[in-house]
Amino acid sequence: MTQTLDAPETTETPDASAVATAWLDDLEAALSARDVPAAARLFASESYWRDLVSFSWNITTVEGREGVEHLLEQTLAGTDPSGFALDEPADEADGVVTAWFVFETAVGRGRGLLRLVEEDGERRAFTFLTTLYELKGHEEPRNEHRPRGAEHGADKSRQTWLERRQEEAESLGSTTQPYVLVIGGGQGGIALGARLRQLGVPSLVIDKHPRPGDQWRNRYKSLCLHDPVWYDHLPYLKFPDNWPVFAPKDKIGDWLESYTKIMEVPYWSSTTATSASYSEETGEWTVEVEREGRPLTLRPTQVVFATGMSGKPNIPDVPGTDVFEGDLHHSSAHPGPDAYRGKKVVVIGSNNSAFDICGALWENDVDVTMVQRSSTHIVKSDSLMEIGLGDLYSERAVKAGVTTEKADLIFASLPYRILHTFQIPAYEAMAEKDKDFYERLEAAGFDHDWGDDGSGLFMKYLRRGSGYYIDVGAADLVANGDVKLVKGQIDHLTRDAVVLADGTELPADVVVMATGYGSMNGWVADLIDQETADRLGKVWGLGSDTTKDPGPWEGEQRNMWKPTQIDNLWMHGGNLHQSRHYSLYLALQLKARFEGIDTPVYGLQEVHHTS
Amino acid sequence: MTQTLDAPETTETPDASAVATAWLDDLEAALSARDVPAAARLFASESYWRDLVSFSWNITTVEGREGVEHLLEQTLAGTDPSGFALDEPADEADGVVTAWFVFETAVGRGRGLLRLVEEDGERRAFTFLTTLYELKGHEEPRNEHRPRGAEHGADKSRQTWLERRQEEAESLGSTTQPYVLVIGGGQGGIALGARLRQLGVPSLVIDKHPRPGDQWRNRYKSLCLHDPVWYDHLPYLKFPDNWPVFAPKDKIGDWLESYTKIMEVPYWSSTTATSASYSEETGEWTVEVEREGRPLTLRPTQVVFATGMSGKPNIPDVPGTDVFEGDLHHSSAHPGPDAYRGKKVVVIGSNNSAFDICGALWENDVDVTMVQRSSTHIVKSDSLMEIGLGDLYSERAVKAGVTTEKADLIFASLPYRILHTFQIPAYEAMAEKDKDFYERLEAAGFDHDWGDDGSGLFMKYLRRGSGYYIDVGAADLVANGDVKLVKGQIDHLTRDAVVLADGTELPADVVVMATGYGSMNGWVADLIDQETADRLGKVWGLGSDTTKDPGPWEGEQRNMWKPTQIDNLWMHGGNLHQSRHYSLYLALQLKARFEGIDTPVYGLQEVHHTS
Repeated sequence: MTQTLDAPETTETPDASAVATAWLDDLEAALSARDVPAAARLFASESYWRDLVSFSWNITTVEGREGVEHLLEQTLAGTDPSGFALDEPADEADGVVTAWFVFETAVGRGRGLLRLVEEDGERRAFTFLTTLYELKGHEEPRNEHRPRGAEHGADKSRQTWLERRQEEAESLGSTTQPYVLVIGGGQGGIALGARLRQLGVPSLVIDKHPRPGDQWRNRYKSLCLHDPVWYDHLPYLKFPDNWPVFAPKDKIGDWLESYTKIMEVPYWSSTTATSASYSEETGEWTVEVEREGRPLTLRPTQVVFATGMSGKPNIPDVPGTDVFEGDLHHSSAHPGPDAYRGKKVVVIGSNNSAFDICGALWENDVDVTMVQRSSTHIVKSDSLMEIGLGDLYSERAVKAGVTTEKADLIFASLPYRILHTFQIPAYEAMAEKDKDFYERLEAAGFDHDWGDDGSGLFMKYLRRGSGYYIDVGAADLVANGDVKLVKGQIDHLTRDAVVLADGTELPADVVVMATGYGSMNGWVADLIDQETADRLGKVWGLGSDTTKDPGPWEGEQRNMWKPTQIDNLWMHGGNLHQSRHYSLYLALQLKARFEGIDTPVYGLQEVHHTS
Repeated sequence: MTQTLDAPETTETPDASAVATAWLDDLEAALSARDVPAAARLFASESYWRDLVSFSWNITTVEGREGVEHLLEQTLAGTDPSGFALDEPADEADGVVTAWFVFETAVGRGRGLLRLVEEDGERRAFTFLTTLYELKGHEEPRNEHRPRGAEHGADKSRQTWLERRQEEAESLGSTTQPYVLVIGGGQGGIALGARLRQLGVPSLVIDKHPRPGDQWRNRYKSLCLHDPVWYDHLPYLKFPDNWPVFAPKDKIGDWLESYTKIMEVPYWSSTTATSASYSEETGEWTVEVEREGRPLTLRPTQVVFATGMSGKPNIPDVPGTDVFEGDLHHSSAHPGPDAYRGKKVVVIGSNNSAFDICGALWENDVDVTMVQRSSTHIVKSDSLMEIGLGDLYSERAVKAGVTTEKADLIFASLPYRILHTFQIPAYEAMAEKDKDFYERLEAAGFDHDWGDDGSGLFMKYLRRGSGYYIDVGAADLVANGDVKLVKGQIDHLTRDAVVLADGTELPADVVVMATGYGSMNGWVADLIDQETADRLGKVWGLGSDTTKDPGPWEGEQRNMWKPTQIDNLWMHGGNLHQSRHYSLYLALQLKARFEGIDTPVYGLQEVHHTS
């Protein structure tokens, strides 16, 4: 969701490749000689090295030559990197050489993306992305390594695929234990489950719903994905090319269910984890679960929370909820408009869920009022697609050779520290393009913002995971008054109304609390205990010191997809893009531990906030 | 399953492209001028023009200049072809210029493959493949034309995807009628159903089994596909790259079930057609079906039989089946070996099913005897993969840019008339490679052949659909005597034995009739009547005048995927490759009729054999 550093009119020149190759050769020479200062001198004074698991066994970004030195001092000997080479011809545009490269470490193979700028007459790295994609000796069984399937020859102990699958299903959780237990089987848990399956890590994904995909099916009926199809592929199996741009929720639900089956993800539906505790002594978790109502104890080595990056529903403590006689629920439990035709509904909140719910209610002849408590950022879906995503995730990008996998790496190569500077112009362009729209919103009294620094939607998503609406039509209902807009804070509820701090009384048969979600470590408090949740700390956000994302600067998303202060506990999730891309690095970290590969973590996350 | 005319060491030269472009320009000039003799002169004295629906509204091959003239005289004005142009640079190798091209007709867009040879100092067409891939104004909603999914804006009459799907499911067959009824929901019916769905042709696929994929699940438990994954993709959604080379039957079953759902194929399980009749007057079929036991009348305009290219099980009329006290069944009803441990089983037949069943029985400690009634052709699966398919359908081919879609067209471009000449060397190579194997088979008394003209397995498949085994291991069991081999004809059954014509008595608890299948028009006789089946004539085969494929030469597979002597009745099926590739041409023929586009058929199939 960003403009990229790569202008579309890049040209491929032999020079760019020679420049990039020379730089990679210099890097390799310095690294081979274990000459950390020489390696650091190859980086520009402003520079960012982002590593996904290949050097750091972490997800981390270091800054400047000092950062490079710090990273290398601690990781170089163990990593033993080598074989840096271009993966395809390099590009040069606007004085920046961009190069895709591959490399090896002692235990794995990696690929990366390098951007060189000129500084003091030399070509130096401005951004340097290194990522691990496979572990040596543990390559995924794909393409030429795919399984054979049929076992040719005659064998009296032959077991068929179905028999093996059945035996595995019967033994899992009774005579065999998963090495990894993934709690939560939405897109995040499923994508990770598929990767772990491919890597041969014994795993189990559990989810409370009756079927994979119910996480989507159970939401309000008009819901469609807000991100377009090119951004949403899962690993291994892409949506077919007739897939809708914005898939309806039931279609995504069906896809997830089919995907789980096709990828042979070990998945228990109708299963809830009720408690978990970790034994330092045995290095094992004890997780109590209820599977279709039957209690059962699991003893995984690793536990992954994939319970939704939005965390637990945040329901404000409003006086009078006990006297309110209507229907009161959080947006996550909203059943859709069908039952409310002709009624009065007050929706508290003005972000994505609030707008989607208001829109669907209005379409069903409900008298609906939105209560805006604080300012919200809105972008029109079409503008976001065109200006925000088009270079990386679109039919145009695919045609230009930017596959989803490539787009993910390009996107990953943009340092979080300066990401907002690339975002701001995109949102300025949207503000200009949709000027009339924003004027109408403002005229209707809507309190609109562009983020603390004008960097728009995607930075809000990364920083706080809230505070915006991708407009698919409901904003116009607010602008034209079809959905009534009221601004203010909730004071209390009466028997049949919402009362605001200024005394305004809003009659209500139904109140929908579209009041957002807490930090994901709330799930940890529930399942393990508050002490563990506090030690884990806040999940999500960058430490940008903007609204709802307090500093200090963290460099990466807090606690996501990487080692945490809690041994053998991991957090996974995010949108479909993140579930796809970061599940790879989480899966490789888990695989390495499963195989007993040494995984010294560089720069383990510190905790600055507990929620 | 063939060597191709394209040697792998082709080189791309500007000359080849210039030569091909000049030829296409000459063709276009001749066709624009409606100068049929000039067009025919562009073809070599030995030449083959194969057209898939674009000129002929048929699947047809014409031979030599005379054939070209005949085709053009009847089709040129109506087709109004134009815009012949290279689709990518042409290749030249061994004096043959090979060129991919595109073109248009009055109603559609096509692509083709051209091979030019030198004759009398001129470049002339040796093979010329023309295929229709879409109808103008009816392009498939894919890629940039994919559906939007979310309907932005606010709309009080909004219907969700799920509501539309439910409404469609409820009305289909009651208040709305399918334009096309596809009888049989295996890979053929499903692939066609998916294409018709994409093309917006109201259709319904019915199948007797409880779930899509049961056609595979219900077969003997050790069954895996005999063709490799690259050959087996369905349209639109390819197998993921971790898919086994030879997929186990239950995994394919699950894939077909997921695919049906993902592609939104209208599919009724547990549904049997009990009778069908066509009214010339109304132009409608009346098809009586039982859906989950409930009788129902359907009134489609078109009926497609996709009941399996193998046709109805062929059970020889053996005296004594009434006195035999054991378990007697056709191979298509064989449940697998589990119930037969320790018993004596006699398998009549020595083709694919017979070998697979014997192998699985032996693995389960069954005393098993194979009765060979006539000679069989065997190739080892690995050799077939490597020598027979590797250039077109393999990881190697994919890496060389030969996508499945391209491979299908290359394969389709090889004229059936001379296909055996390309096949013979491949099978000679296999005979040499696996010499020891064939010697061992012979030493065990097995009666082996390479086809009437030594052209091997794939020609047997195209000509008669039988007479071979792709060895995945069971042949060795016969060679080493683990599976007992007896040669001869069945004379009769006793209470507990099979008696051969020479008096040999084979004690049997179980007799499996692996005795093959009849022509597909047997299904037509059952559902409609014998008179219609006879008018339709034999299905499958080329008229090669070889065993079980009587002449005269037909030029194409009899009655498959193209208009037949019976109005509005179509035959569809074959392996996964054929189900994928030919479903496109059948779907386009049906779509054109649905849209009322004129479809004058060139060279309607004549009937020379009734079964």
